[in-house]
Amino acid sequence: MYNNAATAVAVLGASGYVGRELLGLLDGHPDLALAFATSESESQVEGHQALPLAQAESRWDEARLVFSCLPHGVSAPVVARAAGAGLRVVDLSADLRLSERAVYGLTEVYRDALPDADLVANPGCYPTASVLSVLPFARAGVIDASRPVIIDAASGVSGAGRNPRRDLLFGEVAENFRAYSVGNEHRHLPEITRQISAVAGPVDVVFTPHLLPVHRGILATIHVPLVRELTRQEAEGLLLDAYEGEACIRVMQGQVPTLKDVMHRNRLALGVVPVKHVSHPMITVFGALDKLVKGAAGQAVQNMNVMLGFPETRGLLC
Amino acid sequence: MYNNAATAVAVLGASGYVGRELLGLLDGHPDLALAFATSESESQVEGHQALPLAQAESRWDEARLVFSCLPHGVSAPVVARAAGAGLRVVDLSADLRLSERAVYGLTEVYRDALPDADLVANPGCYPTASVLSVLPFARAGVIDASRPVIIDAASGVSGAGRNPRRDLLFGEVAENFRAYSVGNEHRHLPEITRQISAVAGPVDVVFTPHLLPVHRGILATIHVPLVRELTRQEAEGLLLDAYEGEACIRVMQGQVPTLKDVMHRNRLALGVVPVKHVSHPMITVFGALDKLVKGAAGQAVQNMNVMLGFPETRGLLC
Amino acid sequence: MYNNAATAVAVLGASGYVGRELLGLLDGHPDLALAFATSESESQVEGHQALPLAQAESRWDEARLVFSCLPHGVSAPVVARAAGAGLRVVDLSADLRLSERAVYGLTEVYRDALPDADLVANPGCYPTASVLSVLPFARAGVIDASRPVIIDAASGVSGAGRNPRRDLLFGEVAENFRAYSVGNEHRHLPEITRQISAVAGPVDVVFTPHLLPVHRGILATIHVPLVRELTRQEAEGLLLDAYEGEACIRVMQGQVPTLKDVMHRNRLALGVVPVKHVSHPMITVFGALDKLVKGAAGQAVQNMNVMLGFPETRGLLC
Amino acid sequence: MYNNAATAVAVLGASGYVGRELLGLLDGHPDLALAFATSESESQVEGHQALPLAQAESRWDEARLVFSCLPHGVSAPVVARAAGAGLRVVDLSADLRLSERAVYGLTEVYRDALPDADLVANPGCYPTASVLSVLPFARAGVIDASRPVIIDAASGVSGAGRNPRRDLLFGEVAENFRAYSVGNEHRHLPEITRQISAVAGPVDVVFTPHLLPVHRGILATIHVPLVRELTRQEAEGLLLDAYEGEACIRVMQGQVPTLKDVMHRNRLALGVVPVKHVSHPMITVFGALDKLVKGAAGQAVQNMNVMLGFPETRGLLC
Repeated sequence: MYNNAATAVAVLGASGYVGRELLGLLDGHPDLALAFATSESESQVEGHQALPLAQAESRWDEARLVFSCLPHGVSAPVVARAAGAGLRVVDLSADLRLSERAVYGLTEVYRDALPDADLVANPGCYPTASVLSVLPFARAGVIDASRPVIIDAASGVSGAGRNPRRDLLFGEVAENFRAYSVGNEHRHLPEITRQISAVAGPVDVVFTPHLLPVHRGILATIHVPLVRELTRQEAEGLLLDAYEGEACIRVMQGQVPTLKDVMHRNRLALGVVPVKHVSHPMITVFGALDKLVKGAAGQAVQNMNVMLGFPETRGLLC
Repeated sequence: MYNNAATAVAVLGASGYVGRELLGLLDGHPDLALAFATSESESQVEGHQALPLAQAESRWDEARLVFSCLPHGVSAPVVARAAGAGLRVVDLSADLRLSERAVYGLTEVYRDALPDADLVANPGCYPTASVLSVLPFARAGVIDASRPVIIDAASGVSGAGRNPRRDLLFGEVAENFRAYSVGNEHRHLPEITRQISAVAGPVDVVFTPHLLPVHRGILATIHVPLVRELTRQEAEGLLLDAYEGEACIRVMQGQVPTLKDVMHRNRLALGVVPVKHVSHPMITVFGALDKLVKGAAGQAVQNMNVMLGFPETRGLLC
Repeated sequence: MYNNAATAVAVLGASGYVGRELLGLLDGHPDLALAFATSESESQVEGHQALPLAQAESRWDEARLVFSCLPHGVSAPVVARAAGAGLRVVDLSADLRLSERAVYGLTEVYRDALPDADLVANPGCYPTASVLSVLPFARAGVIDASRPVIIDAASGVSGAGRNPRRDLLFGEVAENFRAYSVGNEHRHLPEITRQISAVAGPVDVVFTPHLLPVHRGILATIHVPLVRELTRQEAEGLLLDAYEGEACIRVMQGQVPTLKDVMHRNRLALGVVPVKHVSHPMITVFGALDKLVKGAAGQAVQNMNVMLGFPETRGLLC
Repeated sequence: MYNNAATAVAVLGASGYVGRELLGLLDGHPDLALAFATSESESQVEGHQALPLAQAESRWDEARLVFSCLPHGVSAPVVARAAGAGLRVVDLSADLRLSERAVYGLTEVYRDALPDADLVANPGCYPTASVLSVLPFARAGVIDASRPVIIDAASGVSGAGRNPRRDLLFGEVAENFRAYSVGNEHRHLPEITRQISAVAGPVDVVFTPHLLPVHRGILATIHVPLVRELTRQEAEGLLLDAYEGEACIRVMQGQVPTLKDVMHRNRLALGVVPVKHVSHPMITVFGALDKLVKGAAGQAVQNMNVMLGFPETRGLLC
């Protein structure tokens, strides 16, 4: 995939599910060359040589931009050193998502800040699905902030990584379904609440994730309290207006999204329906995405494209 | 499985998933004999001969009790004729669940009415999971009826039956997840609302079912608004008190139930947790069951056991 | 499950998939009481207290028979001590399957030796499926020993146990299929070859196992070279004759078995078909079983029933 | 995806699994434009308008090449009319695979005939996996034609199409595994035998397909009798030599391919191992591919690329 004008990028932590997905996307991107990839556990990843992270430090000058897929807690000091060496950074860990130093890489929301950003915190998969589903209603001023936004989300296993854990064995996950981080204790909650409250003002969010026996997808079912009734057409209209021209967001009309609508694509699919038989107005919004693509590696490439001035969807199937 | 004192029972509509599960349970029940089974599509089911429904009409006198697994709409007139012929009936269809003529067969709630009942409407799988999860809090008077009870439930495919449908093909269900009957339009909603409101008074219920890529289970995630804060211990205590001595209900402490906890058992597993970081008190209750057993055939046997004076869990693995 | 005349049995290594399945079967057996169960990793298994193996040694006198579900290599010395303490033993590990000291517990073949056996080596899941599929043809003298018997078998994950391994993660097993121990290197091969050769004389066996994305089943597809042509009816007739009256073997006529035919049952389902368009006579035999039941815990109970003089299928669904 | 120099192609039968996969690949191909797509059941497929087949007949002049994903039996007369109208054709049905009129589109074997071909019969998924796995050994003259080549292959459900069938329901396929077309009766057998015998001379082939609970992949396990022993290195060397420089074939050394190695790629992954403990030399070859890509739509694009003079892997991820 050599290219005379290719921009050199590096990938840290390439052997997890997200890192592999990212390498695959970069291989298909016509304007990039891979400077190096790192892995502590494997010497070959997706056909590329991988070197230990320690060796990357002497090679910062070979790349212009680095993606970090390192684990939470590990990533922050490494990307600080890479940034110090002059590289632009897209950090896919959670380390910088609540920091003021990094641009929050929800592309459709913070697009204008990306071209000048040296440090971008790529959002979590749950926040990407949740925040983009709710924001159009927050912006339209129709959310009743006196009642909670209730998010029940279900996700495949890929987010939990490839480390051996008994609770992620096939025998435990297949033919099963379970909630986790119950009682509003998931680490993605502050990220979700912060983004929604930035527009809607203070609002309670209840977030309950579940583990699905699938590999890649997320579906968020989001009950949004309203200050007034909306017809289905009106609610869909708010989504359509908010995301008009967005290549990576598909608003479905008269139906709700499924995981099949988004698998292997850098796409968030949205649907909305008013809730009948209740005393106070409410809608249910559904947001589906592939957690490895729009929920992680794909959005990272989308952010990089904007940062580097490439067409936003270059190398991406939306 | 012959037995001198065996009670003769019949099964209508035996070749669907529920009918097969029921035949398997009846085979293992030491006090019963199968008088006959019916199927329109197959002549052999689980090792038993099956006859067309039309032929059952001439054989009502061979059984004392009949289980109907006939489709909704088809069941009501047939069970009326069986009842007219003197048989006691457990109807697993939805036809009689909102009727005053039938006892609602949520065993743990209506146990006292079963010994004298001639007609029992076996509850749906979603209502069984939902109502039994919420009732202890309704009875304790802690539900805030001014806010909705929000139920997001996920279920395997077996409830949809064995008729060929494109949306139930392996290629459509595996690696997928989707909501259906969205916007409070599922036919089980009135059944759920009626049972909860009978105790809690009028209360809004929002019910959104989802289709899981699994065969048998249901998990209901239920957000219950409260009039006052409950600690996890207090909330678990209300469940433990309500279901003390119940063989078919397992209250989990310090954890939440999964489908694996209930597969192939006539068991509802419950867990509860208070929701943090919200302005108004709320708990999330989790109820899991095997939709073919406690959600259908197993609860039907449990009801029959009480109707006929057998030990309640005879022939059941709880 | 108390019973005045109950026979006390113990289970070593109860917290793996096989141990759990065995505890479930013992709970449903009307003539047994559990003396104790051991586990190194969990203190409660399937509702029973579990104690460390070291403590079992002081309690051998509480049981008459012990099931060992300990890992291969660990089991042999422990069951030797249990046997030394006077207990009868069913060893589910591979440790004794090639030993002359133990009766090989393929119930349908070695039934007559079981009542007097103190030490029974319960067969592996692959050998049970393979050997019982081939023996009727070996006994009938129709196998051409100059050509190999070729077994391609596919199995679910439960045989690999519950220890965390990357290759058994949901993300690695789901939507995947792969061979392992290729080139005739699986440790079950000598067990299979020995049993077939005992009847057919020296014969080459080629055995290639595969890992299926399912939990419990095994299907063995077995190509058997013949000395003469057999019609399908003749071939099925040899199976039917061989297994007439066998409660745990179902010979299917005009069709081939699937995993669904045997799930959660102590049953081997068999089918056979002649191979068309070949120059030398050949049949393909198909054997399916649930590896946790007829392939492990169920056959262990079947063996115990014969050892102790109970009806052979007591406590088993066949 | 407009392109000034774009070549116009059409897709017949676009709404099945293969048709959809093909549309997705064509969308990503930089040198093509979609003239039209047809479907009898849907008016929109993958974002493209679909018209009834009858309407295609008046639009043949809009395309230079047509892909037919029509059902077997339906395809032949339609592609004859398209060819009569001057279009070049890639027929993905089985209709022309044994015909002398069409070039058999196993790209790696018949590449030289493609640039001049007007009619290409795209191979079946099983033959692609099987024939390419065996040919290198046939060409090397090491196959012992006096003994059969035995192929046990396992495949996901996508080949069976999207028409509702009970045996393809999730409830029937998940947690299941079964053989079909047993006894050498699968319609792909003549295609496989013809291609192997063209090189190896007359040889018996035994082919037994199985249905896997996965969506896309095929793994063929192929036992090949040899005239002399081969070490693993020698056997792998024959594969490496045969496919040196082939972008769409990956020979694995020291390991065997899995479905995960080929999912969503236009790739055949191969591995080989000698069989130990047998009296006559034998190897087992393993071939894995994604049946929708290298087994169907991807190979069709690969063929088209060669037919039209594009780089062979244009628009394909190998």
